Amino acid sequence: MVSTSLNPLTVDRSRIRPDIQALQAQLVEWRRRLHQRPELGFKERITSEFITQKLQEWGIEHQTGIAITGIVATINGKKTLSRGAQLCAPTNHPVLAIRADMDALPIQEQNDVPYKSQHDGVMHACGHDGHTAIALGTAYYLSQHREDFAGTVKIIFQPAEEGPGGAKPMIEAGVLKNPNVDAIIGLHLWNNLPLGTVGVRSDALMAAVELFDLKIKGKGGHGAMPHQTVDAIVVASQVVNALQTIVARNVDPIDSAVVTVGEFHAGSAHNVIADSAHLSGTIRYFNPKYDGYFGQRFEQVVAGVCQSQGATYELDYWQLYPPVINNLEIADLVRSQAEKVVETPLGIVPECQTMGGEDMSFFLQEVPGCYFFLGAANLSRNLAYPHHHPRFDFDETALGMGVEIFVRCVEKFCS
Amino acid sequence: MVSTSLNPLTVDRSRIRPDIQALQAQLVEWRRRLHQRPELGFKERITSEFITQKLQEWGIEHQTGIAITGIVATINGKKTLSRGAQLCAPTNHPVLAIRADMDALPIQEQNDVPYKSQHDGVMHACGHDGHTAIALGTAYYLSQHREDFAGTVKIIFQPAEEGPGGAKPMIEAGVLKNPNVDAIIGLHLWNNLPLGTVGVRSDALMAAVELFDLKIKGKGGHGAMPHQTVDAIVVASQVVNALQTIVARNVDPIDSAVVTVGEFHAGSAHNVIADSAHLSGTIRYFNPKYDGYFGQRFEQVVAGVCQSQGATYELDYWQLYPPVINNLEIADLVRSQAEKVVETPLGIVPECQTMGGEDMSFFLQEVPGCYFFLGAANLSRNLAYPHHHPRFDFDETALGMGVEIFVRCVEKFCS
Amino acid sequence: MVSTSLNPLTVDRSRIRPDIQALQAQLVEWRRRLHQRPELGFKERITSEFITQKLQEWGIEHQTGIAITGIVATINGKKTLSRGAQLCAPTNHPVLAIRADMDALPIQEQNDVPYKSQHDGVMHACGHDGHTAIALGTAYYLSQHREDFAGTVKIIFQPAEEGPGGAKPMIEAGVLKNPNVDAIIGLHLWNNLPLGTVGVRSDALMAAVELFDLKIKGKGGHGAMPHQTVDAIVVASQVVNALQTIVARNVDPIDSAVVTVGEFHAGSAHNVIADSAHLSGTIRYFNPKYDGYFGQRFEQVVAGVCQSQGATYELDYWQLYPPVINNLEIADLVRSQAEKVVETPLGIVPECQTMGGEDMSFFLQEVPGCYFFLGAANLSRNLAYPHHHPRFDFDETALGMGVEIFVRCVEKFCS
Amino acid sequence: MVSTSLNPLTVDRSRIRPDIQALQAQLVEWRRRLHQRPELGFKERITSEFITQKLQEWGIEHQTGIAITGIVATINGKKTLSRGAQLCAPTNHPVLAIRADMDALPIQEQNDVPYKSQHDGVMHACGHDGHTAIALGTAYYLSQHREDFAGTVKIIFQPAEEGPGGAKPMIEAGVLKNPNVDAIIGLHLWNNLPLGTVGVRSDALMAAVELFDLKIKGKGGHGAMPHQTVDAIVVASQVVNALQTIVARNVDPIDSAVVTVGEFHAGSAHNVIADSAHLSGTIRYFNPKYDGYFGQRFEQVVAGVCQSQGATYELDYWQLYPPVINNLEIADLVRSQAEKVVETPLGIVPECQTMGGEDMSFFLQEVPGCYFFLGAANLSRNLAYPHHHPRFDFDETALGMGVEIFVRCVEKFCS
Repeated sequence: MVSTSLNPLTVDRSRIRPDIQALQAQLVEWRRRLHQRPELGFKERITSEFITQKLQEWGIEHQTGIAITGIVATINGKKTLSRGAQLCAPTNHPVLAIRADMDALPIQEQNDVPYKSQHDGVMHACGHDGHTAIALGTAYYLSQHREDFAGTVKIIFQPAEEGPGGAKPMIEAGVLKNPNVDAIIGLHLWNNLPLGTVGVRSDALMAAVELFDLKIKGKGGHGAMPHQTVDAIVVASQVVNALQTIVARNVDPIDSAVVTVGEFHAGSAHNVIADSAHLSGTIRYFNPKYDGYFGQRFEQVVAGVCQSQGATYELDYWQLYPPVINNLEIADLVRSQAEKVVETPLGIVPECQTMGGEDMSFFLQEVPGCYFFLGAANLSRNLAYPHHHPRFDFDETALGMGVEIFVRCVEKFCS
Repeated sequence: MVSTSLNPLTVDRSRIRPDIQALQAQLVEWRRRLHQRPELGFKERITSEFITQKLQEWGIEHQTGIAITGIVATINGKKTLSRGAQLCAPTNHPVLAIRADMDALPIQEQNDVPYKSQHDGVMHACGHDGHTAIALGTAYYLSQHREDFAGTVKIIFQPAEEGPGGAKPMIEAGVLKNPNVDAIIGLHLWNNLPLGTVGVRSDALMAAVELFDLKIKGKGGHGAMPHQTVDAIVVASQVVNALQTIVARNVDPIDSAVVTVGEFHAGSAHNVIADSAHLSGTIRYFNPKYDGYFGQRFEQVVAGVCQSQGATYELDYWQLYPPVINNLEIADLVRSQAEKVVETPLGIVPECQTMGGEDMSFFLQEVPGCYFFLGAANLSRNLAYPHHHPRFDFDETALGMGVEIFVRCVEKFCS
Repeated sequence: MVSTSLNPLTVDRSRIRPDIQALQAQLVEWRRRLHQRPELGFKERITSEFITQKLQEWGIEHQTGIAITGIVATINGKKTLSRGAQLCAPTNHPVLAIRADMDALPIQEQNDVPYKSQHDGVMHACGHDGHTAIALGTAYYLSQHREDFAGTVKIIFQPAEEGPGGAKPMIEAGVLKNPNVDAIIGLHLWNNLPLGTVGVRSDALMAAVELFDLKIKGKGGHGAMPHQTVDAIVVASQVVNALQTIVARNVDPIDSAVVTVGEFHAGSAHNVIADSAHLSGTIRYFNPKYDGYFGQRFEQVVAGVCQSQGATYELDYWQLYPPVINNLEIADLVRSQAEKVVETPLGIVPECQTMGGEDMSFFLQEVPGCYFFLGAANLSRNLAYPHHHPRFDFDETALGMGVEIFVRCVEKFCS
Repeated sequence: MVSTSLNPLTVDRSRIRPDIQALQAQLVEWRRRLHQRPELGFKERITSEFITQKLQEWGIEHQTGIAITGIVATINGKKTLSRGAQLCAPTNHPVLAIRADMDALPIQEQNDVPYKSQHDGVMHACGHDGHTAIALGTAYYLSQHREDFAGTVKIIFQPAEEGPGGAKPMIEAGVLKNPNVDAIIGLHLWNNLPLGTVGVRSDALMAAVELFDLKIKGKGGHGAMPHQTVDAIVVASQVVNALQTIVARNVDPIDSAVVTVGEFHAGSAHNVIADSAHLSGTIRYFNPKYDGYFGQRFEQVVAGVCQSQGATYELDYWQLYPPVINNLEIADLVRSQAEKVVETPLGIVPECQTMGGEDMSFFLQEVPGCYFFLGAANLSRNLAYPHHHPRFDFDETALGMGVEIFVRCVEKFCS
């Protein structure tokens, strides 16, 4: 981490072009409007209508109802292509996608702000309201400056990032086709970095997310007569212990992985041996070579321990999201443009890996791209609560910076 | 166990004296009346009033309200003492106590019988209704045959055996004093033995019962960031495993012991590391030399494992009941009299130890005595459900047998 | 245990008949001669020749070379049988066997006594020299007093009790046939009991002994690259932990059992992951219902844990000796006779169970019998080292007591 | 890894300057001479004399006997410094150090080559013979081309890299002073990379190495009497299991770490409970923030588990070598020069981290620098055995490449 505090670096407004500075008030207004009306995954109807209305207003070609609430806006540039076969685009009509997620979380907001959530128990506690505002601002700016870029920009407004995942159904609906997307970029407003920084790195940025629900089935009985039982708590405790060896012994120590048992529930009385134990948890890793590995290894541990104790099990295991793997060249593109917006060297933070997950990963499996973190914390304004916290909020100064970086990437890639 | 089935041995009614045979219908009536009006521990008001009414009716001296609902009936014999310093009684006025427990369980009866419980959610599912009926029958018979025994018989009707325990407060109230009790006997109708048998043994019959509630306190956090946490599930699982060594390695293998973790509850989400884990369970053993041992050893295991993982803990540990330890000579007395009531050798079952517990143990810590099991199962009549089962019931033929054995013990001890 | 000290109880020599008192010096001489020339199992050649020479000298019929070095002496009584079908003998020619073991241990004696072992690294550190002397004394006495018993006494001098076991091959060689043995008795000089006591009990006296050698086979590798290995130390440690649950959870707590891992050897360098781990150990239990159980359960634990970790294993498991289970009636016989030799009640010790093993058990599987402990410790003479200790020695006063008890049992059983 | 095979990439000899090509035969001769006379750490006398003789022959200023057998050669350039304050050197007299290690391993060579080790049980099985030859060649070349660089080059011939470590005593002897070294470079011939590649990366290249020797002290006893013992095997097995949580739960998953128990030895008989267990092993990690962490955490685990089981312990823990951490700018220097010697992009391999250790780390703690791997495997010539294998050998073509890279780095840094 570049900074032990989350106090912002100096933000030099002159690094943001006047036409985008001029959008800042609008960006804030849009973001706050969205913040007040947060919607859960695949239910982003108000959000979707708001976006659609803006795109219509601005005369931007778009398609709605993709993966229920998803939208793709398409903006063609008017510049003559000067580039060779630089970067990733093999064609003479470069197509760059920008992705923003729209959904909120089932959290009751505890902030006391004028733009507080008006939807009980639902809150934009992860900044997707900001992502949508930045994407809208970018769309607007690009639609007004088509002479500055060639090819096509697709802006993807995606539902349900927090789960069960809107990226995959949008891909399946063809958002990366016609015209074929050459590269994709996206950002996350990030309270683990201070305002004025950008977390950008090649290779793995965020982890694969896998989940399990495990039921260990023993045989219950009187607490004083263990020999008539198969003690599910003892078996499950051995499973928990044996699972530690997956990270400690089976994963290459140079790779990163987490195996967490988040829940362990068994038994209902002091003197009754539990007949079953319910465990749930999550697995995380960066290296795509582990695709499929953990589910198999996990079950091997469970099956062996259960067999050793005469127990059986039921296991549900999901590979929710793959890891977020950035392309080297597109990451260089983003880094080179971000450097023009923040103070360097401190403003560019490569050590920003996190074991958190994101379904941006599905897009990055299809086309080269780069997902990056836009520093948004400002401890001096008490805007530094972690993501998913009921008091989460961010420094809206970042909104204009996000638009500037996106626009710069378009101008560079599609030139 | 003498018999792999729970079908009754032959019951030879001629072994029960005519005056007690004549009581059988009464015994059944009393028992069923009590069965219909079961009451939880220290709330045995109807039960207590019924007993009091009978004792008054029969002119038996008694004291009520001991330990809230307990009663002691005192019946003096008129026989001249012929014995020397036999048995345990050092005085020339032998005093024998007979103990019966009165309370029911918080169980909804599922039997479809005319005498089914009329109290919702409360049931005599352990046979204490029968114990009370046998004690009443014994009191009545003895009051009518005072010339057949010397000294004094105290009949103790005790509340709350199922917990939190009525024996101890009755002792503290002085029921073993004035006159001082020389020995005590008691029985449990026992569905683990068939009708026609008596489980009687010297030394340990039932186990000490100890309980614990343990809270392991770690530090919660994001499921993908274990290094910022102290994972309470991992720590508690190590505690469960380490606890196995108490029985496996620390207890003399010739002694019997059980350490059961009955409950393990921790965590509330797949991807959140639990900050604490709640465990509860029970410890059982026979040998009184382990008094105090398990609480100390248990905490040593917990403290060490917690320390090794940077966790802390809160432990509540109760020594609920000590083991039920029979006196050799009083056990011989009971055996010798029971042999006259059942077919031998099959009818006398010494292999009847159980890791279950009983607060009869407190009486046996104060005075020599013998607690024994009176076989009451009858598989051929489908009366073989285990104790505490909502379909528990027993063969009432055992009631008269119980009175006969008690009376014979009185006549032998107080002679 | 009757006594917290190992100081002897009073030994009343008048309880030993004069003809046996007269043998005492001989008994000591024989025992010391044997003590000086200890021999390992199945190599008891000097011992065997000494016994043979004595039997020849005394004109006692005998057979040698049974199970290599074993001997059976046969002494017919001349008394007319007065008994009915008492005890176990269904015939009118009672046959009682007396068993003594002859072998020594691979231990270097550290006692500084005139009769110290002259065989380097071999020592009678368990008292078998005394057993042989007592059996010889009994043979001599009986051969001189044939008019005092009916039927036949067989005296069995057995090799290799300490392992691999001489009892079984002697049985297979027919020592319990022609004439058929009705019952068998035997004793062990016992330093866990003081001189002047006899440990005698019905049912289980000593434990079954089973052994295992286990090789866990993982895959070795560089200590910094665990992911390329299957860490045999981690797998074997999980096996050790899981084995604790056999005693803690699988065995009826009322039964006694031990599962001990005595050896764990793996690895040869700090920074190399071990490819295999060698474990060995012993299992003990009393209840014959566990015959075959532990081997199966043990392997289930090992197989399951290995499977969970991708390891394999090689397991050798031996049921070496079954438990020593005394017959109720023959135990009563021994007790009744021992009571005439020691001060009671303290001199008779029923609480003398030990998880140690003995191949006397094989004889007791074939015919009813009783194995008992003859107290031999004398702390006041510093004769209280445990069995198998290089300073083990016992109070030779016990020798005559052993002869007296054996002779009394013969006179009672064969009468 | 760039290549799943270890077959060499194309080596374009034209990338090596003629004067260094001309040295190749000499480099091979020197290397083979050293290979035949391998010497263990701090005993490199023949090696040291050979180097000294060459340096004298070439008229190169040098100092011997540093840290027993170490040598520092000093070569001053004659070029006028043209640089500004580029790179790391703050002065106008840049000083670059080149480090080579000289020691061999206690391994019996199994190669059948003319230059096979002539010292029984000692072998250059890690390529230090090649390192010394490359350093000599570099020294010779530089001494002949002093006009091509400014400032000073120090060539450090270091003893005992394989342990116990010669770097630290050489630093303490002042080899980085007078004149003060501005930066240091070094290389390892590397059979995990094919000939024609260079493994170079910023940040951590190799791991910290820590070692432990642990004695768990329980209390021994008879295998059938666990209650009289503290079973060291059970305690140590729990320690092994608990240690797994250090990597699995305590270390940031984004960091790399290994905790390996390499040895576990306890017990000497099936039926004796071990009184102690000896464990040894190694800890590895990259991130310097863990300096001191593992020793403390390791002991916390051991102490807690021992306390929970009533055992004690003796722990020796050594922080042998810190991690090898390359400086960003010096790594860029090496990369930029290596790119001129190998085919790119495949020839430059950043994914070359290894959890192996190196005492080059001590130099890198003192001054900025870069340690890199010079691909030396050639599967087509069967030169691909792993380091420390008795058949280890490498493709000597790499020797000239090493000199070329070192010389280029000097010419760039000191210009």
